Amino acid sequence: MYQPDNVKISPDLPIPETMRAWVLGDPDQLTLTIKPVPVPKKAEVLVRIDAVAICATDLEIIHHGPPAMIQGGLPYNKNFTPGHEYMGTVAALGPGVDEYKIGERVTVEIHAGCGQCKRCREGMYTSCHNYGLNYGDVDKGHRANGFTTDGGFAEYAVNSINTLVRVSDEMSDEEATLVVTAGTAMYGLTELGGLVAGESVVVTGTRDNRLQIGLELGADYVVNAKNEDPVAAVRKLNGGKGVDYVIECSGAPDAVNEAARMVNRGGRICLAAFPGKPAEVDIAYLVRNNIYVFGIRGEGKSATHRAEAFMAQKRFDATKVHTHTFALEDLPTALRYARERIEDAIKVVVKTHGHAAVNSVAAE
Amino acid sequence: MYQPDNVKISPDLPIPETMRAWVLGDPDQLTLTIKPVPVPKKAEVLVRIDAVAICATDLEIIHHGPPAMIQGGLPYNKNFTPGHEYMGTVAALGPGVDEYKIGERVTVEIHAGCGQCKRCREGMYTSCHNYGLNYGDVDKGHRANGFTTDGGFAEYAVNSINTLVRVSDEMSDEEATLVVTAGTAMYGLTELGGLVAGESVVVTGTRDNRLQIGLELGADYVVNAKNEDPVAAVRKLNGGKGVDYVIECSGAPDAVNEAARMVNRGGRICLAAFPGKPAEVDIAYLVRNNIYVFGIRGEGKSATHRAEAFMAQKRFDATKVHTHTFALEDLPTALRYARERIEDAIKVVVKTHGHAAVNSVAAE
Amino acid sequence: MYQPDNVKISPDLPIPETMRAWVLGDPDQLTLTIKPVPVPKKAEVLVRIDAVAICATDLEIIHHGPPAMIQGGLPYNKNFTPGHEYMGTVAALGPGVDEYKIGERVTVEIHAGCGQCKRCREGMYTSCHNYGLNYGDVDKGHRANGFTTDGGFAEYAVNSINTLVRVSDEMSDEEATLVVTAGTAMYGLTELGGLVAGESVVVTGTRDNRLQIGLELGADYVVNAKNEDPVAAVRKLNGGKGVDYVIECSGAPDAVNEAARMVNRGGRICLAAFPGKPAEVDIAYLVRNNIYVFGIRGEGKSATHRAEAFMAQKRFDATKVHTHTFALEDLPTALRYARERIEDAIKVVVKTHGHAAVNSVAAE
Amino acid sequence: MYQPDNVKISPDLPIPETMRAWVLGDPDQLTLTIKPVPVPKKAEVLVRIDAVAICATDLEIIHHGPPAMIQGGLPYNKNFTPGHEYMGTVAALGPGVDEYKIGERVTVEIHAGCGQCKRCREGMYTSCHNYGLNYGDVDKGHRANGFTTDGGFAEYAVNSINTLVRVSDEMSDEEATLVVTAGTAMYGLTELGGLVAGESVVVTGTRDNRLQIGLELGADYVVNAKNEDPVAAVRKLNGGKGVDYVIECSGAPDAVNEAARMVNRGGRICLAAFPGKPAEVDIAYLVRNNIYVFGIRGEGKSATHRAEAFMAQKRFDATKVHTHTFALEDLPTALRYARERIEDAIKVVVKTHGHAAVNSVAAE
Repeated sequence: MYQPDNVKISPDLPIPETMRAWVLGDPDQLTLTIKPVPVPKKAEVLVRIDAVAICATDLEIIHHGPPAMIQGGLPYNKNFTPGHEYMGTVAALGPGVDEYKIGERVTVEIHAGCGQCKRCREGMYTSCHNYGLNYGDVDKGHRANGFTTDGGFAEYAVNSINTLVRVSDEMSDEEATLVVTAGTAMYGLTELGGLVAGESVVVTGTRDNRLQIGLELGADYVVNAKNEDPVAAVRKLNGGKGVDYVIECSGAPDAVNEAARMVNRGGRICLAAFPGKPAEVDIAYLVRNNIYVFGIRGEGKSATHRAEAFMAQKRFDATKVHTHTFALEDLPTALRYARERIEDAIKVVVKTHGHAAVNSVAAE
Repeated sequence: MYQPDNVKISPDLPIPETMRAWVLGDPDQLTLTIKPVPVPKKAEVLVRIDAVAICATDLEIIHHGPPAMIQGGLPYNKNFTPGHEYMGTVAALGPGVDEYKIGERVTVEIHAGCGQCKRCREGMYTSCHNYGLNYGDVDKGHRANGFTTDGGFAEYAVNSINTLVRVSDEMSDEEATLVVTAGTAMYGLTELGGLVAGESVVVTGTRDNRLQIGLELGADYVVNAKNEDPVAAVRKLNGGKGVDYVIECSGAPDAVNEAARMVNRGGRICLAAFPGKPAEVDIAYLVRNNIYVFGIRGEGKSATHRAEAFMAQKRFDATKVHTHTFALEDLPTALRYARERIEDAIKVVVKTHGHAAVNSVAAE
Repeated sequence: MYQPDNVKISPDLPIPETMRAWVLGDPDQLTLTIKPVPVPKKAEVLVRIDAVAICATDLEIIHHGPPAMIQGGLPYNKNFTPGHEYMGTVAALGPGVDEYKIGERVTVEIHAGCGQCKRCREGMYTSCHNYGLNYGDVDKGHRANGFTTDGGFAEYAVNSINTLVRVSDEMSDEEATLVVTAGTAMYGLTELGGLVAGESVVVTGTRDNRLQIGLELGADYVVNAKNEDPVAAVRKLNGGKGVDYVIECSGAPDAVNEAARMVNRGGRICLAAFPGKPAEVDIAYLVRNNIYVFGIRGEGKSATHRAEAFMAQKRFDATKVHTHTFALEDLPTALRYARERIEDAIKVVVKTHGHAAVNSVAAE
Repeated sequence: MYQPDNVKISPDLPIPETMRAWVLGDPDQLTLTIKPVPVPKKAEVLVRIDAVAICATDLEIIHHGPPAMIQGGLPYNKNFTPGHEYMGTVAALGPGVDEYKIGERVTVEIHAGCGQCKRCREGMYTSCHNYGLNYGDVDKGHRANGFTTDGGFAEYAVNSINTLVRVSDEMSDEEATLVVTAGTAMYGLTELGGLVAGESVVVTGTRDNRLQIGLELGADYVVNAKNEDPVAAVRKLNGGKGVDYVIECSGAPDAVNEAARMVNRGGRICLAAFPGKPAEVDIAYLVRNNIYVFGIRGEGKSATHRAEAFMAQKRFDATKVHTHTFALEDLPTALRYARERIEDAIKVVVKTHGHAAVNSVAAE
């Protein structure tokens, strides 16, 4: 049985010594293997993964390799487990951890900063200056689940307690996997955007067959950019003045320029997507109109805790975007559903423990 | 004599009924004319102009026309007086004004917001949503000296008390004309940039024959971009980590991309210049590195008051950038010196009252 | 008929030349009189008052006189009309106003800043340094409805457009009178408190017979301070750690010390009430625990606009606190209900136009 | 010789196995003993202490015991070494540390936060919710030099790399011991106070025989509170309007009320001292005037780095407040000088290595 030194476990939640885990070999080569269950260190816990959702970034990582390795020229880790939108149950506590109890349901954010760099010291741990520095000899303590450290397409994962968010009993496992996604959106709206109730915001880049869901989730208006000019539509809906904030999710080449013409003087643009190659930007327009442009780099500023609170109050109903569930062994099928949007798939979830994965049977 | 109703004047500072003022007819057509001395309203004063500096934007306005008219499609005002970097003496007080006394030396910032729009209510009066709305039937109270209202190439000008900054006795008229310029820089450094002592900043776009002045004004290092790659030079000087902030003053087509590679993760870029046409921007790099990009639109947040305080303490020595002085009637020559950088001209000042304008004689 | 120069009116909403208005003579001497309908100036409108709620501060002003007069030693205006929680219909537009149309339903915030002082220039118009300076010879443009200028216990009132908030069609007149109150709370929560979803807040000082309403409005827990020690109760409910924020509404002598022991290290206390005389405060405890203490001075930072948006979305149900309605001529009875909490009165509203005031008949 | 596992040392800076260290037994019982040189862990270094200044808080700790022990009811550590204003030379690196090199001169701030609590995650590590939790079984990683962990009245000390600040070559050891003190002041001025150039600030509580030094360090005016009413004096000097900020350093019983009457509406008061027992506070005045009150709890927000930058530029000349120097073995004498202000002592420094401690001889 699993019983590392200085790690607290409970007889109520026995842990095997090995686990099933998908690993990424060469690009697009995912294999289900057996790995040792990892061991939490100081300020870390072991999480038994109960559910994990598939994010578009997972599809990219599986196809291209983790960004830190590619951009940083790091050696390609052939034993790497991707997956970052996961939730589960606290299964073991690293030395000294008393912030969490074994058996608690938690969901996780991606980034644990190093805690020493300029950005971490400012509370901006998602922009940690030691990003990716947890390989080999240089371990600065930074971790990014499923990006630079092993992630959630497995039965267990180690997490810094900084990344944990308690999950309300009323929230299903599937909903809880979406807390980190909602937390990213909240970080963009609240901390980065400074948006407060009563201000106007445009979210660009939603697919046209999802516009109805936008209305159900609380949008006052939806505009189908295939049928009408979005800039003109937004300015008309807003009385000609321009909105306070645009969250750009399309990544289209002209998206920044269009967003700039949607916001008012002094407005802000948050880039949640970006074009694959450099794009022409009317910089003079941005400067003359005092427009602020910035990207969003994950969840940040503990916004996942706020997202959980919102979702527990049913103020954001994540069940509207969760469409499919599969079992862990069916990950390749789940990825295909997510990639090809089969049956209008939006959020596809993989269940590792617990409830039967009904969709899986039906879908296959 | 000048004695409008409800306006307070003083026998110590008699005001004529008319004044000399340069007016812009067609582009590049400046004529020295006689105008009535204008009348201050509520919360306004009449300023006797003692000195006015020439800004690169003045050259553009004289060549192209004021931006609000051109961009806003407004009728071209053939009686418009440009000039915005001016200082002088409070000569008359509008109804109810007791914040200033006749005889006080003041310098001015450009923008007086409408006080009613969203931005003015946030304190961001330089991004007033009623910018330019002080023509004809629609007067929202916004004023921008030398941009949308008559400016400083004249003997007198009306100013909102919001735009006034008292000038220390130790500061010369010539120095005081540069307070608004320094205030713009301070706004970019402090309010927009959040820069605090000990952080690292790069200012790009300085001409190579002015690098020495940069050192004299306090730069730790200067890099001549003609001789070495500025991105590599900055990263080397900064220990490879990237700086906290770049103030981009070159307006070069690739400037945003270069600035992005100078700052560290989570860093900021302030655009004080911009290319004449849309430029290719590596948006993905900005997003991945959590870089904030924004323009600077004039002085803002009462930063001119702070600039005056700094300059009065000799912490920024404006005499190092003031190179030439001319008389009001010699404005065309002064503009030529500024435009063509004759005799390495940096800041060219026009004196309206007071001391003999020695340079003028020598220069002509 | 009412037809002042330069003021825009509409035949659809004819305005009489005089109106009924309650005026405060000596303390506690309210008289219903006839006054001329006032005239809006630049950036002002005339509002036809449709409903006005009674605030505890109104009771104090009627009993003691307006605070600016008392504290500032100003002459007591015997023709003053109190009342500040009012809403109504835009009836006439001052010169140049095009931000509002005649016939629009609006509610109002109290403070219009001078627009020139340090605080107004920062967006903190409720702390205007020219507060109260709109009497006699010194008019700096500051206005505080029902405090320093005529208020809402009348048929019409002039308002700066800065104080107006459009009211959604779904919101009743009675609800709309409470927008400014909700806006004050939102300002305390969001701008002053920096509170974001998921943080913990305690509101102290609620009467015990209103605790149930607290639960209905969204509180997770209520504590009856008559039955248990509130500090112990809060720390227990919060897992011993202390909450992030306390909004102190009791004004009890020991309230600051109790609040200090409810918040965690680095927490904040917002004082929405205060004891009638100086109170002993354990300052060392505040300093050692890095606690921030500040008062709330009305609504601020356009928070009323956000309050209206929240209330229009039924996120705050003001009908739960509105208990009684009277007609304008029954103001003394309405004040008595509010003062003595007759029939558990919470918010008592006076209707000036429109619907029959049914309670009035029943109550008397 | 000192050679712990996984710790990097250098032959250029040999380290003994034991060191001299003052330890606090019962209150006021300081003994010079021999201790093992401590061992740095992950993200820690060993600092060879070259100089340490005496702070008023050291005098209190020596007289009463460390605050965390007393307030937290923790067991009294009879082997504790006080002293927190120290600087020195990096002597050994804990596992993985590459941010610093052996031989670098550094000064230290006091607090290393746990990195996991709400406050540390916000960048407010001086208000760490796990303050003091580094005793016995519960080690959350928080450290406060000379408060909860061994401090600087010794030859060596371990420090988190988060607490280190590089020292410019031009700065003497004595000056460098004052960086943390200056950093605390800067944190109060900049981060807590939001003060920018050109605003007005009052520092209260300076002894009258030090007023001249205040002028030398840059104060525009000094007021001797023994000779004139400080509130009246400040309001007069400031044109009757009140200042923007008061840093209260007197700890006098009426200090908060006096400070409140010095600041303008919307102003701020930072408490850097506090009365020994609860004091009467006019809370109503604070609320009505929208005054913000908060304590300062050490240095915070990396302000020491900014302080070092300021001091290296000679913008704050610490030599003006450094008055005496003693050798490590003369600590009791040094403490007496500081406590009794012998020979007008302000900052008394103890030198551990290096230059002869000339004062020591002269003084004794």
